[in-house]
Amino acid sequence: MTGLTIVKVGGGVLEEPQTRDRFVSSFAAVPGLKVLVHGGGRLADLYLKKLGIQPRMVEGRRLTDGPTLEVVTMVYGGLVNKQVVAGLQKAGVNALGLSGADGGIITSHKRPVKQHDYGYVGDIVHVEAQALVQFIALGYVPVICPLTCDNKGQLLNTNADTIAREVAMALSGSFRISLRFCIDYPGVMLDTARPGSVLPLLDRSSYEEYRNSKVIVDGMIPKLDNAFATRAAGIQEVVIAGLDTLSDPDKATRIAL
Amino acid sequence: MTGLTIVKVGGGVLEEPQTRDRFVSSFAAVPGLKVLVHGGGRLADLYLKKLGIQPRMVEGRRLTDGPTLEVVTMVYGGLVNKQVVAGLQKAGVNALGLSGADGGIITSHKRPVKQHDYGYVGDIVHVEAQALVQFIALGYVPVICPLTCDNKGQLLNTNADTIAREVAMALSGSFRISLRFCIDYPGVMLDTARPGSVLPLLDRSSYEEYRNSKVIVDGMIPKLDNAFATRAAGIQEVVIAGLDTLSDPDKATRIAL
Repeated sequence: MTGLTIVKVGGGVLEEPQTRDRFVSSFAAVPGLKVLVHGGGRLADLYLKKLGIQPRMVEGRRLTDGPTLEVVTMVYGGLVNKQVVAGLQKAGVNALGLSGADGGIITSHKRPVKQHDYGYVGDIVHVEAQALVQFIALGYVPVICPLTCDNKGQLLNTNADTIAREVAMALSGSFRISLRFCIDYPGVMLDTARPGSVLPLLDRSSYEEYRNSKVIVDGMIPKLDNAFATRAAGIQEVVIAGLDTLSDPDKATRIAL
Repeated sequence: MTGLTIVKVGGGVLEEPQTRDRFVSSFAAVPGLKVLVHGGGRLADLYLKKLGIQPRMVEGRRLTDGPTLEVVTMVYGGLVNKQVVAGLQKAGVNALGLSGADGGIITSHKRPVKQHDYGYVGDIVHVEAQALVQFIALGYVPVICPLTCDNKGQLLNTNADTIAREVAMALSGSFRISLRFCIDYPGVMLDTARPGSVLPLLDRSSYEEYRNSKVIVDGMIPKLDNAFATRAAGIQEVVIAGLDTLSDPDKATRIAL
Protein backbone atom coordinates (compact mmCIF):
# COMPACT_ATOMS: atom_id res chain seq x y z
CA MET A 1 0.00 0.00 0.00
CA THR A 2 1.03 3.58 -0.60
CA GLY A 3 2.08 5.52 2.48
CA LEU A 4 0.05 8.42 3.86
CA THR A 5 1.16 10.70 6.68
CA ILE A 6 -1.57 12.20 8.84
CA VAL A 7 -0.38 15.08 11.03
CA LYS A 8 -2.36 16.51 13.91
CA VAL A 9 -1.33 19.94 15.19
CA GLY A 10 -2.87 21.82 18.08
CA GLY A 11 -3.94 25.37 18.57
CA GLY A 12 -0.88 26.19 20.67
CA VAL A 13 1.43 25.83 17.67
CA LEU A 14 -0.95 27.71 15.35
CA GLU A 15 -1.72 30.69 17.60
CA GLU A 16 1.39 32.78 16.81
CA PRO A 17 2.21 33.64 13.17
CA GLN A 18 5.87 32.72 13.77
CA THR A 19 5.30 29.16 15.03
CA ARG A 20 2.49 28.74 12.49
CA ASP A 21 4.95 29.59 9.70
CA ARG A 22 7.50 27.16 11.15
CA PHE A 23 4.85 24.45 11.31
CA VAL A 24 3.77 25.12 7.71
CA SER A 25 7.40 24.72 6.54
CA SER A 26 7.81 21.51 8.55
CA PHE A 27 4.56 20.05 7.24
CA ALA A 28 5.46 21.04 3.67
CA ALA A 29 8.72 19.10 4.11
CA VAL A 30 6.92 15.85 5.00
CA PRO A 31 7.36 13.73 1.86
CA GLY A 32 4.59 11.85 0.04
CA LEU A 33 0.83 11.91 0.44
CA LYS A 34 -0.48 13.66 3.52
CA VAL A 35 -3.43 14.99 5.49
CA LEU A 36 -3.47 17.68 8.18
CA VAL A 37 -5.89 17.81 11.12
CA HIS A 38 -5.67 20.99 13.17
CA GLY A 39 -7.03 22.37 16.42
CA GLY A 40 -7.38 25.99 17.40
CA GLY A 41 -8.39 26.05 21.05
CA ARG A 42 -6.10 28.86 22.14
CA LEU A 43 -7.32 31.21 19.39
CA ALA A 44 -10.89 30.23 20.24
CA ASP A 45 -10.23 31.18 23.88
CA LEU A 46 -8.79 34.51 22.74
CA TYR A 47 -11.85 35.35 20.62
CA LEU A 48 -14.31 34.07 23.23
CA LYS A 49 -12.76 36.45 25.75
CA LYS A 50 -12.75 39.35 23.24
CA LEU A 51 -16.49 38.71 22.76
CA GLY A 52 -17.15 38.58 26.49
CA ILE A 53 -17.81 34.82 26.62
CA GLN A 54 -16.01 32.94 29.39
CA PRO A 55 -14.39 29.72 28.04
CA ARG A 56 -15.57 26.76 30.12
CA MET A 57 -13.79 23.40 30.18
CA VAL A 58 -14.60 20.12 31.94
CA GLU A 59 -11.89 17.46 32.06
CA GLY A 60 -10.03 19.13 29.22
CA ARG A 61 -13.11 19.31 26.97
CA ARG A 62 -14.85 22.53 26.02
CA LEU A 63 -18.44 23.12 27.10
CA THR A 64 -19.90 24.39 23.83
CA ASP A 65 -23.11 26.38 24.18
CA GLY A 66 -24.70 28.19 21.23
CA PRO A 67 -22.59 31.38 21.32
CA THR A 68 -19.42 29.31 21.87
CA LEU A 69 -20.28 27.13 18.85
CA GLU A 70 -20.55 30.26 16.67
CA VAL A 71 -17.10 31.36 17.81
CA VAL A 72 -15.39 27.99 17.30
CA THR A 73 -17.08 27.69 13.89
CA MET A 74 -15.53 31.04 12.98
CA VAL A 75 -12.12 30.39 14.48
CA TYR A 76 -11.61 26.74 13.46
CA GLY A 77 -13.41 26.74 10.10
CA GLY A 78 -12.49 30.28 9.10
CA LEU A 79 -9.48 31.90 10.74
CA VAL A 80 -7.20 28.94 11.49
CA ASN A 81 -8.19 26.74 8.55
CA LYS A 82 -7.87 29.46 5.89
CA GLN A 83 -4.63 30.89 7.31
CA VAL A 84 -3.05 27.42 7.31
CA VAL A 85 -4.38 26.66 3.82
CA ALA A 86 -3.05 29.97 2.48
CA GLY A 87 0.35 29.34 4.10
CA LEU A 88 0.55 25.83 2.67
CA GLN A 89 -0.41 27.05 -0.81
CA LYS A 90 2.45 29.53 -0.62
CA ALA A 91 4.75 26.63 0.39
CA GLY A 92 3.68 24.70 -2.71
CA VAL A 93 1.27 22.32 -0.95
CA ASN A 94 -2.12 22.12 -2.69
CA ALA A 95 -4.11 22.33 0.54
CA LEU A 96 -7.89 21.87 0.56
CA GLY A 97 -9.56 23.11 3.73
CA LEU A 98 -12.41 20.98 5.02
CA SER A 99 -14.73 20.72 7.98
CA GLY A 100 -16.55 17.47 8.63
CA ALA A 101 -19.62 19.05 7.01
CA ASP A 102 -17.90 19.64 3.66
CA GLY A 103 -18.64 16.80 1.28
CA GLY A 104 -20.18 15.05 4.30
CA ILE A 105 -16.71 13.73 5.17
CA ILE A 106 -17.26 13.34 8.93
CA THR A 107 -20.68 12.69 10.46
CA SER A 108 -21.14 12.88 14.22
CA HIS A 109 -23.93 12.93 16.75
CA LYS A 110 -24.35 15.31 19.65
CA ARG A 111 -22.81 13.81 22.78
CA PRO A 112 -25.59 12.55 25.08
CA VAL A 113 -25.91 14.33 28.42
CA LYS A 114 -24.59 12.10 31.22
CA GLN A 115 -22.48 13.49 34.05
CA HIS A 116 -21.94 16.71 32.08
CA ASP A 117 -23.79 18.49 29.30
CA TYR A 118 -21.02 19.34 26.87
CA GLY A 119 -23.48 21.17 24.62
CA TYR A 120 -22.74 21.23 20.88
CA VAL A 121 -19.97 18.63 21.01
CA GLY A 122 -19.90 15.82 18.48
CA ASP A 123 -18.88 12.18 18.76
CA ILE A 124 -17.87 10.78 15.38
CA VAL A 125 -20.10 8.11 13.86
CA HIS A 126 -18.74 7.96 10.28
CA VAL A 127 -15.81 9.10 8.16
CA GLU A 128 -16.51 9.10 4.42
CA ALA A 129 -13.12 7.62 3.50
CA GLN A 130 -13.88 7.43 -0.23
CA ALA A 131 -14.28 11.22 -0.45
CA LEU A 132 -10.91 11.79 1.22
CA VAL A 133 -9.29 9.15 -1.01
CA GLN A 134 -10.65 10.95 -4.09
CA PHE A 135 -9.34 14.34 -2.95
CA ILE A 136 -5.92 12.80 -2.26
CA ALA A 137 -5.97 11.06 -5.67
CA LEU A 138 -6.60 14.45 -7.31
CA GLY A 139 -3.44 15.79 -5.67
CA TYR A 140 -5.00 17.70 -2.79
CA VAL A 141 -3.79 17.73 0.80
CA PRO A 142 -6.92 17.78 2.98
CA VAL A 143 -6.65 20.24 5.89
CA ILE A 144 -9.36 19.28 8.35
CA CYS A 145 -10.66 21.57 11.11
CA PRO A 146 -12.29 20.21 14.29
CA LEU A 147 -15.92 20.74 13.28
CA THR A 148 -18.28 17.97 12.25
CA CYS A 149 -21.97 17.81 11.41
CA ASP A 150 -24.83 15.53 12.33
CA ASN A 151 -27.33 14.39 9.70
CA LYS A 152 -29.76 17.14 10.76
CA GLY A 153 -27.55 20.04 9.71
CA GLN A 154 -26.17 20.77 13.20
CA LEU A 155 -22.49 21.71 13.33
CA LEU A 156 -20.68 20.18 16.31
CA ASN A 157 -17.36 20.96 17.98
CA THR A 158 -15.20 17.84 17.83
CA ASN A 159 -11.85 17.02 19.40
CA ALA A 160 -9.05 17.24 16.82
CA ASP A 161 -7.04 14.32 18.27
CA THR A 162 -10.15 12.15 17.93
CA ILE A 163 -10.68 13.33 14.33
CA ALA A 164 -7.05 12.45 13.53
CA ARG A 165 -7.51 8.97 15.00
CA GLU A 166 -10.84 8.31 13.23
CA VAL A 167 -9.53 9.62 9.89
CA ALA A 168 -6.44 7.40 10.30
CA MET A 169 -8.64 4.38 11.00
CA ALA A 170 -10.95 5.12 8.05
CA LEU A 171 -8.02 5.59 5.63
CA SER A 172 -6.06 2.58 6.89
CA GLY A 173 -7.90 0.39 4.38
CA SER A 174 -6.46 2.45 1.51
CA PHE A 175 -3.05 3.57 2.76
CA ARG A 176 -0.21 2.53 5.05
CA ILE A 177 -0.69 5.23 7.69
CA SER A 178 1.85 7.15 9.73
CA LEU A 179 -0.04 9.27 12.28
CA ARG A 180 2.04 12.07 13.82
CA PHE A 181 0.90 14.24 16.71
CA CYS A 182 2.84 17.51 16.60
CA ILE A 183 3.51 19.02 20.03
CA ASP A 184 5.63 21.86 21.46
CA TYR A 185 8.57 19.49 22.12
CA PRO A 186 10.54 17.31 19.65
CA GLY A 187 8.98 14.16 21.15
CA VAL A 188 8.29 12.65 24.57
CA MET A 189 11.18 13.89 26.76
CA LEU A 190 12.38 12.63 30.11
CA ASP A 191 13.62 16.14 30.84
CA THR A 192 12.38 19.01 28.70
CA ALA A 193 15.58 20.93 29.49
CA ARG A 194 17.72 18.21 27.84
CA PRO A 195 17.27 17.94 24.05
CA GLY A 196 18.98 14.53 24.13
CA SER A 197 16.29 13.08 26.39
CA VAL A 198 13.72 12.41 23.62
CA LEU A 199 12.55 8.80 23.91
CA PRO A 200 12.82 7.09 20.50
CA LEU A 201 10.23 4.53 21.57
CA LEU A 202 7.59 4.52 24.28
CA ASP A 203 5.65 1.38 25.13
CA ARG A 204 2.65 1.15 27.38
CA SER A 205 4.41 -0.30 30.42
CA SER A 206 7.13 2.38 30.34
CA TYR A 207 4.44 5.03 29.86
CA GLU A 208 2.65 3.82 32.97
CA GLU A 209 5.87 3.90 34.97
CA TYR A 210 6.70 7.44 33.81
CA ARG A 211 3.18 8.52 34.63
CA ASN A 212 3.30 6.98 38.10
CA SER A 213 6.66 8.60 38.81
CA LYS A 214 5.36 11.99 37.54
CA VAL A 215 7.92 12.19 34.73
CA ILE A 216 5.00 12.46 32.32
CA VAL A 217 2.32 14.84 33.57
CA ASP A 218 -0.51 17.23 32.69
CA GLY A 219 -1.46 17.78 29.06
CA MET A 220 0.79 14.98 27.81
CA ILE A 221 -1.42 12.36 29.48
CA PRO A 222 -4.59 12.71 27.32
CA LYS A 223 -2.36 13.08 24.22
CA LEU A 224 -0.50 9.87 25.03
CA ASP A 225 -3.68 8.02 26.04
CA ASN A 226 -5.12 8.87 22.62
CA ALA A 227 -1.85 7.90 20.91
CA PHE A 228 -1.81 4.47 22.63
CA ALA A 229 -5.50 3.94 21.84
CA THR A 230 -4.78 4.71 18.18
CA ARG A 231 -1.81 2.36 18.08
CA ALA A 232 -3.87 -0.35 19.79
CA ALA A 233 -6.66 0.18 17.25
CA GLY A 234 -4.29 -1.00 14.54
CA ILE A 235 -2.47 2.07 13.20
CA GLN A 236 1.05 0.73 12.65
CA GLU A 237 3.00 3.95 13.08
CA VAL A 238 1.98 6.51 15.71
CA VAL A 239 4.52 9.23 16.47
CA ILE A 240 4.75 12.09 18.95
CA ALA A 241 6.83 14.72 17.16
CA GLY A 242 7.77 18.39 17.30
CA LEU A 243 8.10 21.15 14.72
CA ASP A 244 11.66 20.08 13.89
CA THR A 245 11.11 16.32 13.94
CA LEU A 246 7.81 16.14 12.07
CA SER A 247 9.34 14.84 8.86
CA ASP A 248 11.85 12.58 10.65
CA PRO A 249 10.13 10.12 13.04
CA ASP A 250 13.54 8.63 13.94
CA LYS A 251 14.26 11.81 15.93
CA ALA A 252 10.80 11.81 17.55
CA THR A 253 8.95 9.28 19.75
CA ARG A 254 7.27 6.22 18.25
CA ILE A 255 4.47 4.63 20.25
CA ALA A 256 4.78 0.87 20.81
CA LEU A 257 2.29 -1.57 22.29
CA MET B 1 -23.01 21.48 -23.24
CA THR B 2 -24.38 20.47 -19.87
CA GLY B 3 -26.11 23.24 -17.94
CA LEU B 4 -24.69 24.66 -14.71
CA THR B 5 -26.52 27.13 -12.47
CA ILE B 6 -24.34 29.52 -10.46
CA VAL B 7 -26.20 31.30 -7.68
CA LYS B 8 -24.87 34.31 -5.81
CA VAL B 9 -26.52 35.18 -2.51
CA GLY B 10 -25.67 38.11 -0.27
CA GLY B 11 -25.16 38.46 3.44
CA GLY B 12 -28.57 40.07 3.93
CA VAL B 13 -30.38 36.83 3.08
CA LEU B 14 -27.95 34.71 5.15
CA GLU B 15 -27.93 36.81 8.33
CA GLU B 16 -31.15 35.46 9.91
CA PRO B 17 -31.55 31.69 10.43
CA GLN B 18 -35.10 31.86 9.03
CA THR B 19 -34.25 33.45 5.67
CA ARG B 20 -31.07 31.35 5.51
CA ASP B 21 -33.20 28.21 5.84
CA ARG B 22 -35.58 29.47 3.16
CA PHE B 23 -32.65 30.18 0.87
CA VAL B 24 -31.15 26.72 1.49
CA SER B 25 -34.48 25.11 0.51
CA SER B 26 -34.75 27.28 -2.61
CA PHE B 27 -31.17 26.53 -3.65
CA ALA B 28 -31.67 22.81 -3.02
CA ALA B 29 -34.67 22.95 -5.38
CA VAL B 30 -32.61 24.31 -8.29
CA PRO B 31 -32.30 21.30 -10.61
CA GLY B 32 -29.07 20.04 -12.17
CA LEU B 33 -25.44 20.92 -11.55
CA LYS B 34 -24.85 24.01 -9.46
CA VAL B 35 -22.41 26.25 -7.62
CA LEU B 36 -23.11 28.72 -4.82
CA VAL B 37 -21.18 31.93 -4.18
CA HIS B 38 -22.11 33.71 -0.96
CA GLY B 39 -21.41 36.97 0.79
CA GLY B 40 -21.72 37.72 4.48
CA GLY B 41 -21.24 41.46 4.88
CA ARG B 42 -24.02 42.02 7.40
CA LEU B 43 -22.76 39.29 9.75
CA ALA B 44 -19.24 40.68 9.33
CA ASP B 45 -20.53 44.12 10.37
CA LEU B 46 -22.22 42.55 13.41
CA TYR B 47 -19.04 40.81 14.56
CA LEU B 48 -16.82 43.81 13.77
CA LYS B 49 -19.01 45.91 16.07
CA LYS B 50 -19.05 43.22 18.77
CA LEU B 51 -15.24 43.28 18.64
CA GLY B 52 -15.10 47.07 18.82
CA ILE B 53 -13.98 47.56 15.22
CA GLN B 54 -15.88 50.21 13.25
CA PRO B 55 -16.85 48.90 9.77
CA ARG B 56 -15.58 51.32 7.12
CA MET B 57 -16.90 51.42 3.56
CA VAL B 58 -15.91 53.50 0.51
CA GLU B 59 -18.25 53.46 -2.50
CA GLY B 60 -19.89 50.27 -1.26
CA ARG B 61 -16.57 48.45 -0.76
CA ARG B 62 -15.14 47.50 2.61
CA LEU B 63 -11.86 49.01 3.78
CA THR B 64 -10.13 45.87 5.05
CA ASP B 65 -7.32 46.51 7.50
CA GLY B 66 -5.56 43.66 9.35
CA PRO B 67 -8.08 43.24 12.20
CA THR B 68 -10.99 43.50 9.73
CA LEU B 69 -9.41 40.80 7.53
CA GLU B 70 -9.27 38.45 10.54
CA VAL B 71 -12.96 39.03 11.20
CA VAL B 72 -14.11 38.56 7.59
CA THR B 73 -11.93 35.43 7.35
CA MET B 74 -13.77 34.06 10.39
CA VAL B 75 -17.25 35.15 9.33
CA TYR B 76 -17.10 34.35 5.60
CA GLY B 77 -14.85 31.27 5.67
CA GLY B 78 -16.09 29.90 8.99
CA LEU B 79 -19.49 30.98 10.25
CA VAL B 80 -21.44 31.64 7.04
CA ASN B 81 -19.75 29.03 4.85
CA LYS B 82 -20.05 26.18 7.33
CA GLN B 83 -23.62 27.03 8.37
CA VAL B 84 -24.71 27.07 4.71
CA VAL B 85 -22.80 23.86 3.95
CA ALA B 86 -24.36 22.10 6.97
CA GLY B 87 -27.84 23.30 5.95
CA LEU B 88 -27.36 22.13 2.37
CA GLN B 89 -26.08 18.72 3.52
CA LYS B 90 -29.26 18.35 5.56
CA ALA B 91 -31.26 19.25 2.42
CA GLY B 92 -29.52 16.46 0.49
CA VAL B 93 -27.07 18.71 -1.41
CA ASN B 94 -23.47 17.46 -1.24
CA ALA B 95 -22.01 20.91 -0.55
CA LEU B 96 -18.26 21.47 -0.47
CA GLY B 97 -17.23 24.73 1.19
CA LEU B 98 -14.34 26.54 -0.45
CA SER B 99 -12.45 29.79 -0.20
CA GLY B 100 -10.33 30.91 -3.12
CA ALA B 101 -7.29 29.61 -1.21
CA ASP B 102 -8.60 26.03 -1.06
CA GLY B 103 -7.12 24.01 -3.89
CA GLY B 104 -5.82 27.32 -5.23
CA ILE B 105 -9.16 27.80 -6.99
CA ILE B 106 -9.11 31.63 -7.08
CA THR B 107 -5.90 33.65 -7.15
CA SER B 108 -6.00 37.40 -6.68
CA HIS B 109 -3.65 40.28 -6.10
CA LYS B 110 -3.97 43.02 -3.53
CA ARG B 111 -5.72 46.01 -5.04
CA PRO B 112 -3.15 48.75 -5.76
CA VAL B 113 -3.54 51.96 -3.77
CA LYS B 114 -4.93 54.71 -6.01
CA GLN B 115 -7.59 57.14 -4.79
CA HIS B 116 -8.28 54.86 -1.78
CA ASP B 117 -6.30 52.24 0.08
CA TYR B 118 -8.79 49.40 0.39
CA GLY B 119 -6.30 47.36 2.41
CA TYR B 120 -6.50 43.57 2.16
CA VAL B 121 -8.89 43.53 -0.79
CA GLY B 122 -8.22 41.23 -3.73
CA ASP B 123 -8.77 41.64 -7.45
CA ILE B 124 -9.10 38.27 -9.17
CA VAL B 125 -6.34 37.27 -11.57
CA HIS B 126 -7.14 33.56 -12.11
CA VAL B 127 -9.87 30.99 -11.53
CA GLU B 128 -8.63 27.38 -11.63
CA ALA B 129 -11.63 26.13 -13.63
CA GLN B 130 -10.33 22.57 -13.90
CA ALA B 131 -10.41 22.11 -10.12
CA LEU B 132 -14.04 23.27 -9.95
CA VAL B 133 -14.95 21.05 -12.92
CA GLN B 134 -13.41 18.05 -11.11
CA PHE B 135 -15.32 18.75 -7.89
CA ILE B 136 -18.56 19.08 -9.86
CA ALA B 137 -17.80 15.86 -11.76
CA LEU B 138 -17.40 14.06 -8.41
CA GLY B 139 -20.91 15.17 -7.46
CA TYR B 140 -20.05 18.08 -5.17
CA VAL B 141 -21.75 21.46 -5.12
CA PRO B 142 -19.00 24.03 -4.51
CA VAL B 143 -20.01 26.68 -1.96
CA ILE B 144 -17.57 29.56 -2.38
CA CYS B 145 -17.01 32.28 0.22
CA PRO B 146 -15.68 35.73 -0.71
CA LEU B 147 -12.04 35.20 0.28
CA THR B 148 -9.22 34.71 -2.18
CA CYS B 149 -5.46 34.38 -1.86
CA ASP B 150 -2.46 35.83 -3.65
CA ASN B 151 0.50 33.67 -4.57
CA LYS B 152 2.37 34.83 -1.45
CA GLY B 153 -0.04 33.27 1.06
CA GLN B 154 -1.97 36.47 1.77
CA LEU B 155 -5.74 36.04 2.18
CA LEU B 156 -7.72 38.86 0.57
CA ASN B 157 -11.32 40.01 0.96
CA THR B 158 -13.01 39.81 -2.44
CA ASN B 159 -16.42 40.96 -3.66
CA ALA B 160 -18.82 38.02 -3.97
CA ASP B 161 -20.60 39.41 -7.06
CA THR B 162 -17.22 39.64 -8.78
CA ILE B 163 -16.35 36.08 -7.75
CA ALA B 164 -19.68 34.87 -9.17
CA ARG B 165 -18.96 36.63 -12.48
CA GLU B 166 -15.36 35.38 -12.73
CA VAL B 167 -16.34 31.81 -11.82
CA ALA B 168 -19.13 31.97 -14.43
CA MET B 169 -16.65 33.17 -17.07
CA ALA B 170 -14.09 30.52 -16.16
CA LEU B 171 -16.67 27.70 -16.26
CA SER B 172 -18.38 28.90 -19.43
CA GLY B 173 -15.93 26.83 -21.47
CA SER B 174 -17.19 23.64 -19.80
CA PHE B 175 -20.87 24.34 -19.12
CA ARG B 176 -23.84 26.31 -20.43
CA ILE B 177 -24.11 28.78 -17.55
CA SER B 178 -27.15 30.32 -15.90
CA LEU B 179 -25.94 32.92 -13.39
CA ARG B 180 -28.57 33.96 -10.84
CA PHE B 181 -28.17 36.81 -8.38
CA CYS B 182 -30.49 36.21 -5.42
CA ILE B 183 -31.86 39.39 -3.85
CA ASP B 184 -34.52 40.30 -1.26
CA TYR B 185 -37.17 40.73 -3.99
CA PRO B 186 -38.47 38.19 -6.57
CA GLY B 187 -36.72 40.13 -9.36
CA VAL B 188 -36.33 43.70 -10.59
CA MET B 189 -39.64 45.38 -9.68
CA LEU B 190 -41.14 48.62 -10.93
CA ASP B 191 -42.95 48.92 -7.59
CA THR B 192 -41.80 46.76 -4.67
CA ALA B 193 -45.33 46.98 -3.20
CA ARG B 194 -46.80 45.26 -6.28
CA PRO B 195 -45.79 41.59 -6.70
CA GLY B 196 -47.01 41.69 -10.31
CA SER B 197 -44.49 44.39 -11.25
CA VAL B 198 -41.51 42.06 -11.67
CA LEU B 199 -39.89 42.74 -15.05
CA PRO B 200 -39.44 39.47 -16.95
CA LEU B 201 -36.70 41.05 -19.06
CA LEU B 202 -34.50 44.09 -18.54
CA ASP B 203 -32.32 45.43 -21.33
CA ARG B 204 -29.67 48.09 -21.01
CA SER B 205 -31.62 50.95 -22.52
CA SER B 206 -34.64 50.31 -20.27
CA TYR B 207 -32.29 50.00 -17.30
CA GLU B 208 -30.82 53.40 -18.08
CA GLU B 209 -34.29 54.93 -18.36
CA TYR B 210 -35.41 53.44 -15.04
CA ARG B 211 -32.22 54.62 -13.41
CA ASN B 212 -32.63 58.15 -14.78
CA SER B 213 -36.25 58.28 -13.63
CA LYS B 214 -35.24 56.95 -10.15
CA VAL B 215 -37.39 53.82 -10.46
CA ILE B 216 -34.19 51.81 -9.91
CA VAL B 217 -32.07 53.25 -7.10
CA ASP B 218 -29.51 52.59 -4.37
CA GLY B 219 -28.14 49.09 -3.88
CA MET B 220 -29.76 47.74 -7.04
CA ILE B 221 -27.48 49.89 -9.22
CA PRO B 222 -24.11 48.16 -8.52
CA LYS B 223 -25.90 44.78 -8.65
CA LEU B 224 -27.40 45.54 -12.05
CA ASP B 225 -24.20 47.12 -13.36
CA ASN B 226 -22.40 43.87 -12.50
CA ALA B 227 -25.22 41.80 -14.02
CA PHE B 228 -25.06 43.73 -17.31
CA ALA B 229 -21.25 43.50 -17.35
CA THR B 230 -21.52 39.73 -16.88
CA ARG B 231 -24.10 39.40 -19.66
CA ALA B 232 -21.97 41.56 -21.95
CA ALA B 233 -18.94 39.40 -21.16
CA GLY B 234 -20.73 36.48 -22.81
CA ILE B 235 -22.72 34.69 -20.10
CA GLN B 236 -25.93 33.78 -21.96
CA GLU B 237 -28.33 33.71 -19.03
CA VAL B 238 -28.03 36.25 -16.23
CA VAL B 239 -31.01 36.45 -13.86
CA ILE B 240 -31.98 38.66 -10.92
CA ALA B 241 -34.12 36.42 -8.71
CA GLY B 242 -35.54 36.16 -5.21
CA LEU B 243 -35.86 33.36 -2.68
CA ASP B 244 -39.11 32.15 -4.29
CA THR B 245 -38.06 32.54 -7.93
CA LEU B 246 -34.52 31.15 -7.73
CA SER B 247 -35.40 27.88 -9.41
CA ASP B 248 -37.80 29.47 -11.92
CA PRO B 249 -36.15 32.24 -13.97
CA ASP B 250 -39.41 32.78 -15.89
CA LYS B 251 -40.81 34.41 -12.74
CA ALA B 252 -37.67 36.49 -12.15
CA THR B 253 -35.84 39.08 -14.27
CA ARG B 254 -33.56 38.06 -17.15
CA ILE B 255 -30.88 40.52 -18.19
CA ALA B 256 -30.76 41.32 -21.92
CA LEU B 257 -28.21 43.29 -23.88
